[in-house]
Amino acid sequence: MRDLARIVGTEHVLEGEQLEDASASRGISGRARALVRPASAEQVAAVFAWCYAHDVPLIARGGATGFSGGAVPRSGDEVVLELGRLDRVLAFDPGLWRMHVQAGLSTRHVARIARESGLFYPPDPGAAEQSQIGGNIATNAGGPHTFKYGSTGAWVTGLEACLAPGELVRIGGPQRKDAAGYDLRGLLVGSEGTLGIVTAAWLRLIPAPLQRQVACACYPDARTGCAGVRAVLEAGVQASALEYLDAGALAAAPRDGLAGEFAVIAEADAAGVLPELLEALAPGAISLVEADPAEIWRWRDGVSIAVTARRGGKLSEDICVPLDRLEAAIEGTVAIGVRHGLEACSWGHAGDGNLHSTFLLGPGESADDAAQELFELAAALGGTVSGEHGMGQVKRPLHLDSAARAANAAIKRALDPKGLLNPGKKVFDL
Amino acid sequence: MRDLARIVGTEHVLEGEQLEDASASRGISGRARALVRPASAEQVAAVFAWCYAHDVPLIARGGATGFSGGAVPRSGDEVVLELGRLDRVLAFDPGLWRMHVQAGLSTRHVARIARESGLFYPPDPGAAEQSQIGGNIATNAGGPHTFKYGSTGAWVTGLEACLAPGELVRIGGPQRKDAAGYDLRGLLVGSEGTLGIVTAAWLRLIPAPLQRQVACACYPDARTGCAGVRAVLEAGVQASALEYLDAGALAAAPRDGLAGEFAVIAEADAAGVLPELLEALAPGAISLVEADPAEIWRWRDGVSIAVTARRGGKLSEDICVPLDRLEAAIEGTVAIGVRHGLEACSWGHAGDGNLHSTFLLGPGESADDAAQELFELAAALGGTVSGEHGMGQVKRPLHLDSAARAANAAIKRALDPKGLLNPGKKVFDL
Repeated sequence: MRDLARIVGTEHVLEGEQLEDASASRGISGRARALVRPASAEQVAAVFAWCYAHDVPLIARGGATGFSGGAVPRSGDEVVLELGRLDRVLAFDPGLWRMHVQAGLSTRHVARIARESGLFYPPDPGAAEQSQIGGNIATNAGGPHTFKYGSTGAWVTGLEACLAPGELVRIGGPQRKDAAGYDLRGLLVGSEGTLGIVTAAWLRLIPAPLQRQVACACYPDARTGCAGVRAVLEAGVQASALEYLDAGALAAAPRDGLAGEFAVIAEADAAGVLPELLEALAPGAISLVEADPAEIWRWRDGVSIAVTARRGGKLSEDICVPLDRLEAAIEGTVAIGVRHGLEACSWGHAGDGNLHSTFLLGPGESADDAAQELFELAAALGGTVSGEHGMGQVKRPLHLDSAARAANAAIKRALDPKGLLNPGKKVFDL
Repeated sequence: MRDLARIVGTEHVLEGEQLEDASASRGISGRARALVRPASAEQVAAVFAWCYAHDVPLIARGGATGFSGGAVPRSGDEVVLELGRLDRVLAFDPGLWRMHVQAGLSTRHVARIARESGLFYPPDPGAAEQSQIGGNIATNAGGPHTFKYGSTGAWVTGLEACLAPGELVRIGGPQRKDAAGYDLRGLLVGSEGTLGIVTAAWLRLIPAPLQRQVACACYPDARTGCAGVRAVLEAGVQASALEYLDAGALAAAPRDGLAGEFAVIAEADAAGVLPELLEALAPGAISLVEADPAEIWRWRDGVSIAVTARRGGKLSEDICVPLDRLEAAIEGTVAIGVRHGLEACSWGHAGDGNLHSTFLLGPGESADDAAQELFELAAALGGTVSGEHGMGQVKRPLHLDSAARAANAAIKRALDPKGLLNPGKKVFDL
């Protein structure tokens, strides 16, 4: 530990810290050998190199807003690199639609800087005040606006990262296209700190939409509501977000004007789109109103916490299925809950077929078996066990066939030959 | 060869074929041990497995429209898998904005099917009649609309591919998001057949824009024209394409209404954008007109051929630089030509900083030294040696630092341990 203190300063090495993330409500927690708070990419590389040389496992940690325990230690041997001090904007060129930021900058900060210059950084995962760009990149975080604008990775043109055995590398940069080497940028995106540690990123921006309007539609049941979601696509209307809440989620996060058993929230950010959304959502709706966008997104951001508050804890996953299987996944979530004696609900990114399937937990209760069934449901519906939260320590890629598992394992060995990067996460049992 | 004939049928194995692609105009050509034309993904896997078991190098080949010799044999030992018979649309769900196609389907065919249902497949590399989706994916092909909509990879949600030692794998699928395994999808995109062979893809579509309008601006010099390009971004206007031609390209592909030494073509595909484009492009312009989009893109598609026709041959590259270095790259291209006694010009995707820097060649002439200087220029300007054509056998990633090279080499070894997949291409001298 003295070696680490020499790199980052004694006051930035905390031994034996107990660490959690947003998966704490399902009981996940772990102790770090040391929590280390580097102030620069060079310090990250020095700590990385020290760990790799001494066979010490290493975890990168951002705002700790993940739902999968991805940044929570498992063995107690891990050095945890907390990146919050790397919070500088290295360059911002509004006239060139780009920003160069350190990994520890909060998502909200990035969005705000862009907005103040009339630009837009679309990725909008929950808990944006706390979550950091580095963590967003490590999980390829999504959000409501992913439906139109893609996940975090779609906005990253370059990375600075530390790769084994502890070397900083630049991948891509401010240029908007790169077809030279393999897509290491894309490979690090979503790799959850198991292949390298991102220290900075070049982000691409676009002009801010001139308007935002939101339609809220309520339906008597999931079937009619899912038909409304599909009707938006069938009408060829590009909503900028297309969200849903089922009956259980609505009960946990009630809101004036949302009645019925199923709600669809559709945002328009281009001229002429709102009337088309309203028309597509109308058949079968028991109410259909325009709502204030800022207010509705504030409320939407609180749904996860409201559902947790219902019984004190929850297990919430993020399966993603082909859009034509959305209804089956929503109803399947509730049915799995019934089989396990658990109250279940879901809400999420309807347009992307991405559910936050959730089992409510009282003190001491577990939903691990229900979660396993949920993952099997996702695979059976032709989808994936994770759409945007990543695997962390709670999910296995059971929908992957053996050749895909072998390829994942080969890549892990290639870039982390000692297996020291975030062990027990993402790809650990392939 | 008899083993291969047993897999695909005698009539689909051609021995000793001499093969070229669009790099033929610079003299690149190569003989295949055998050209094999499989009819199914299973036949691809069987040929792949036979080659891998017998240590025979293997090249996948689509429409042969590449500029980098990526699908042209080097040693004469290679079996070349020509994928044109895999040309089926496996599924098309217009109401779900998605399509599942085999790798050998032409880009134009994909675009046409989408368009006929009011949808839009944005990637638009040149030679769309000949180029195939599999090749587009293998090179992460771009085009004019990449500026707003991204390269080919942004539209691929899933792949079926054959990986070593010859196994078909499904990666992703029709679901729109996937945060489970590593991004093998993104890793295969742009890997130029050196990590695996794509046999089918799930493509994402969007509603077709309701309108298309094009502004053509002409300027007295590159400096003023590049200022016009930057003015579009500074005004916060989202053009759907933002192209340029320099003096030499305009001379080779003259067009009524385009005068001056530098032209900018800006497309608007949303309401209200054209007037903003016209306003942003006006300062310094010697002419500024609206043009017919279909007509201008047809002409634009012929620029490469027109430039080739000038002296019979050309060496054309696709460096990509940060947007603020566009002017330096355009002027640098001409200056390199002057130093090497070659007529040089460029045109390309201004908004992406992506140049088609070109040296005209008469019979027997070479521009290899000039190309090397061009790549050094791209690196010196903080860019990449390839924005959208890929590396093939003609480019080296000299802008990559040693850690990035090592990571590329490790990935190649991990997924192609025998080094049999498209040898001598992309990453061959790392």
